[in-house]
Amino acid sequence: MRIPILKLGKYLLVSIQWELDDQTALQFQEDLLQMIHQTNAGGVVIDITSIDFIDSFIAKVLGDVIEMSKLMGAKVVITGIQPPVAITLLELGIRLDDVMTAIDLENGLDKLQQELGE
Amino acid sequence: MRIPILKLGKYLLVSIQWELDDQTALQFQEDLLQMIHQTNAGGVVIDITSIDFIDSFIAKVLGDVIEMSKLMGAKVVITGIQPPVAITLLELGIRLDDVMTAIDLENGLDKLQQELGE
Repeated sequence: MRIPILKLGKYLLVSIQWELDDQTALQFQEDLLQMIHQTNAGGVVIDITSIDFIDSFIAKVLGDVIEMSKLMGAKVVITGIQPPVAITLLELGIRLDDVMTAIDLENGLDKLQQELGE
Repeated sequence: MRIPILKLGKYLLVSIQWELDDQTALQFQEDLLQMIHQTNAGGVVIDITSIDFIDSFIAKVLGDVIEMSKLMGAKVVITGIQPPVAITLLELGIRLDDVMTAIDLENGLDKLQQELGE
């Protein structure tokens, strides 16, 4: 199973709607970076509203993919972080200090557009 | 496997990026109608750019889901129909006469916004 990545103008949209297994998470990481490269995406919104549990491996992959996307020049907004996920991320020491967050996909896209001055 | 359905404002976005098996197609039909109901979506964009082969069952399910969405009051735009898919749809007699189409997700969303007068 792979996670679909949607291209909308200069942005990529991803909605993770089911718990990720390790293989799917790694595949997603690879696919997203490839897609940023191919499309010259200026920003990415990753919506995790449907995720209410995250383990340390998935949290690390998520943290990594944000860092890597930044290195490639794409801003990342994470949307819909549920309370248990926020707690887990903090407990695991996954730093999302300078990651933009928003309540849902729409607000995430707005934030990205503001950030990129459009 | 289920196909993620993204809610963006009043619209739903779906990108079908891998060939559908029968079960996934039926699940998608159910999920989409459920989601239209839950979100009061005014329109749906279904992107099938990545699909370059469609069999008669999947074509029928796609035709049905468009009709059903309309019945529920949501306009549907299909984007990224590839030549072999267009040929198959025609050969199978799947009528997409009054379905809006567009070249990609972005244009599909634009079309929907124009159509709904926004």
